[in-house]
Amino acid sequence: MGEGILSRSDVAVRESAAGFTRRGGWLHADSVALADIARLAGTPTYVYSASAVRAQYARLDAALAGVPHRIHYSVKANGNLALLSLLRQLGAGVDIVSGGELYRARAAGFRGSDVVFSGVGKTVAELDDAVQAEVKLVNVESEAELRLLDDIARLHRRVAPVALRVNPEVEVETAHHYTRTGARGDKFGIPYDEARGVARLAGSLPNVALAGLDMHIGSQLTRIEPYADGLARLLELRDAIVADGGGARLRYLDIGGGLGVTYDAESEADLDAFARIVVPAAKKSGLELVMEPGRFLVGNAGVLLTRVLYRKRSGGKDYVITDAGMTELLRPSHYNAFHRIEPVGPSGVAGVVDVVGPVCESGDFFARDRSLGDVVPGELLAIGSAGAYGSVMSSQYNARPRVPEIIVDGERVAVARERETVEDLVRHEKASPQWRTL
Amino acid sequence: MGEGILSRSDVAVRESAAGFTRRGGWLHADSVALADIARLAGTPTYVYSASAVRAQYARLDAALAGVPHRIHYSVKANGNLALLSLLRQLGAGVDIVSGGELYRARAAGFRGSDVVFSGVGKTVAELDDAVQAEVKLVNVESEAELRLLDDIARLHRRVAPVALRVNPEVEVETAHHYTRTGARGDKFGIPYDEARGVARLAGSLPNVALAGLDMHIGSQLTRIEPYADGLARLLELRDAIVADGGGARLRYLDIGGGLGVTYDAESEADLDAFARIVVPAAKKSGLELVMEPGRFLVGNAGVLLTRVLYRKRSGGKDYVITDAGMTELLRPSHYNAFHRIEPVGPSGVAGVVDVVGPVCESGDFFARDRSLGDVVPGELLAIGSAGAYGSVMSSQYNARPRVPEIIVDGERVAVARERETVEDLVRHEKASPQWRTL
Repeated sequence: MGEGILSRSDVAVRESAAGFTRRGGWLHADSVALADIARLAGTPTYVYSASAVRAQYARLDAALAGVPHRIHYSVKANGNLALLSLLRQLGAGVDIVSGGELYRARAAGFRGSDVVFSGVGKTVAELDDAVQAEVKLVNVESEAELRLLDDIARLHRRVAPVALRVNPEVEVETAHHYTRTGARGDKFGIPYDEARGVARLAGSLPNVALAGLDMHIGSQLTRIEPYADGLARLLELRDAIVADGGGARLRYLDIGGGLGVTYDAESEADLDAFARIVVPAAKKSGLELVMEPGRFLVGNAGVLLTRVLYRKRSGGKDYVITDAGMTELLRPSHYNAFHRIEPVGPSGVAGVVDVVGPVCESGDFFARDRSLGDVVPGELLAIGSAGAYGSVMSSQYNARPRVPEIIVDGERVAVARERETVEDLVRHEKASPQWRTL
Repeated sequence: MGEGILSRSDVAVRESAAGFTRRGGWLHADSVALADIARLAGTPTYVYSASAVRAQYARLDAALAGVPHRIHYSVKANGNLALLSLLRQLGAGVDIVSGGELYRARAAGFRGSDVVFSGVGKTVAELDDAVQAEVKLVNVESEAELRLLDDIARLHRRVAPVALRVNPEVEVETAHHYTRTGARGDKFGIPYDEARGVARLAGSLPNVALAGLDMHIGSQLTRIEPYADGLARLLELRDAIVADGGGARLRYLDIGGGLGVTYDAESEADLDAFARIVVPAAKKSGLELVMEPGRFLVGNAGVLLTRVLYRKRSGGKDYVITDAGMTELLRPSHYNAFHRIEPVGPSGVAGVVDVVGPVCESGDFFARDRSLGDVVPGELLAIGSAGAYGSVMSSQYNARPRVPEIIVDGERVAVARERETVEDLVRHEKASPQWRTL
């Protein structure tokens, strides 16, 4: 039936009846009613659709079919082990940014050769782990990191394959300046005009092998031109490296992630147009294409399910107070991000309300001045597009145990993460700590 | 010697040699070198000074000495059990905002009669817990909550003491609009002109007793005039309630928290001026004064200790990349909050840098264009004023295990919270979840 919480443009998912749609007026995840999930798991809870993830993966994989490629899922978007296992079964590798994400990836069955290691602040311990795990690529962010990695690899008598993460210094538009990473003066990447020198250095160091070139231009991009500009600069750099006598072991062209999804009315990145730019360029380069999508694969495959606790009128405003808050989904408060919100049941007359959480902060809100059905205390709401940067950014602020993650696949349901208990809050603390002198 | 990371104005703490000061050029917590704590606990780590907490508590307690009062520490600022125990030993009660905080308070030895329960979105389960714990006051936020509490108390054959949390609708200045809570059109509190009616309702409900009036006007206030305005309105309301024949059981005047501390050059709230306003008003009311300070007691009693991983120059900017990030201290990214940053060791020539974390977000920063000693990779930095809204807002984003909390008291050191392990990250997850149908 009709409009679900997924965007209008997410046609592929809609057509296969995967993801979040209404049946008989009630919102479902695949074939399972969200109201039933609330009974099973309580609220708040995250709910993911496995088939929505599968559909997005298939779309992207098909778009890149014309060229040797591998999709390395960006674990930071959502590191839940069940989702990681699902993506592994689909053929994905992973893109990680920490030792903790390496641990998660391995717990989900990935091997070192499935792993690309990105990140601007890798520690000695993390690089050591990565070398021992024999990861496919370390995306190196600076000359200092390259030298450090060479030292560490030497200790292990290994040669670590690296890609240079280059800042292509292209102009991009993103929803929030915090999600822009490929402009001049970012902390990310090697400045473009230094990259050739760092490549020469890599060639001279015995325990690293320059195996790839990497860029990451931002997050939640809905225009694809920045990929064209960035790719052109990356291939220019490749030519310069080859001219310098390097590049014999170059094998991977890593174009990062950043493909946007639809939160509201914004148009989703045009995959066909994207492929028309990326595939020929990758083909011409002779390199294997690596992509690191996160949000694109899981963003619209999740909702945050919450219950209305109170309605309140104050200072001329109507408030809907939910049992979920910024502790579960930080994006509205942190990035001023838009998330669709729908009643789970058939909704009545619309009113304009603020949807706010129970946390003691004015910044604990999900929506301001939003038109929403006439919801009452006890009623369930689904907050859309919560599959990426939702649960992973959650906290225990206000001593709130973190909420479960439920995964649905067709008619089946599984608890992918259990709700925390109050005992979990103090697991590593003692009211009477052991005093000592140093 | 001389300037430590504590503000210039924090004279009381400085004079007693408590808190964070330099000795022989090296930053200490009380008598313990932060460099020694880094060796003990690794980095990043939080470090708290018990004597700094004690000194702030003593100052506030002394300022209120002229009137019967109790300081209820606001657990949401920092719920660490060792800090809670310390405050309990000093004579404090607690102000809680969730069932999780009630659990924390009891784990630290507080009894129900020590507890004031605030919060805009209390659930049935939380109110039930509070009634069973026989808390001193439930600060009720709406008519709906009052009725719900009455129902729950009836089931337990109890009479729940309540305070009405009134929105005094006074104008305040705070550092960030997210920390303003007492203006018209906030989600917090009962609108002022409805409070009299809600008091009448409380009088008519058999299982609640109107025991207090409460206001909370905001957070990090550095002017004290709003307290005067708010108190005047609260006492007006008291007179109206008495005129209505209610108020026989009124006993507490709760003026909330909000006292500001010095993060940078802003002046701290003037405690003497504050007392000159509050003490006479409380005395005249004949009610017992309740205060709910959080940040004021612990804000400047903590630092976040971090190590420099890399230095990097990009797009004309110098970056200092630390092993701590927005995952440990969200305030700079979330509120654009200023935190002082100092090298732990004697610092050399100053340069202007951005101090950023290792998390894969442009928003992961601690300071922009900050003058800082010429720090090198491996060097320790202390990020100041991190005792409140630091650790409690931390997350495992980017699969980063949460960091320890170390408490220092004079020459003694204790681990108040142990560092999480990578195993903790997946404690409630399964890579192969158990599927079922509902």
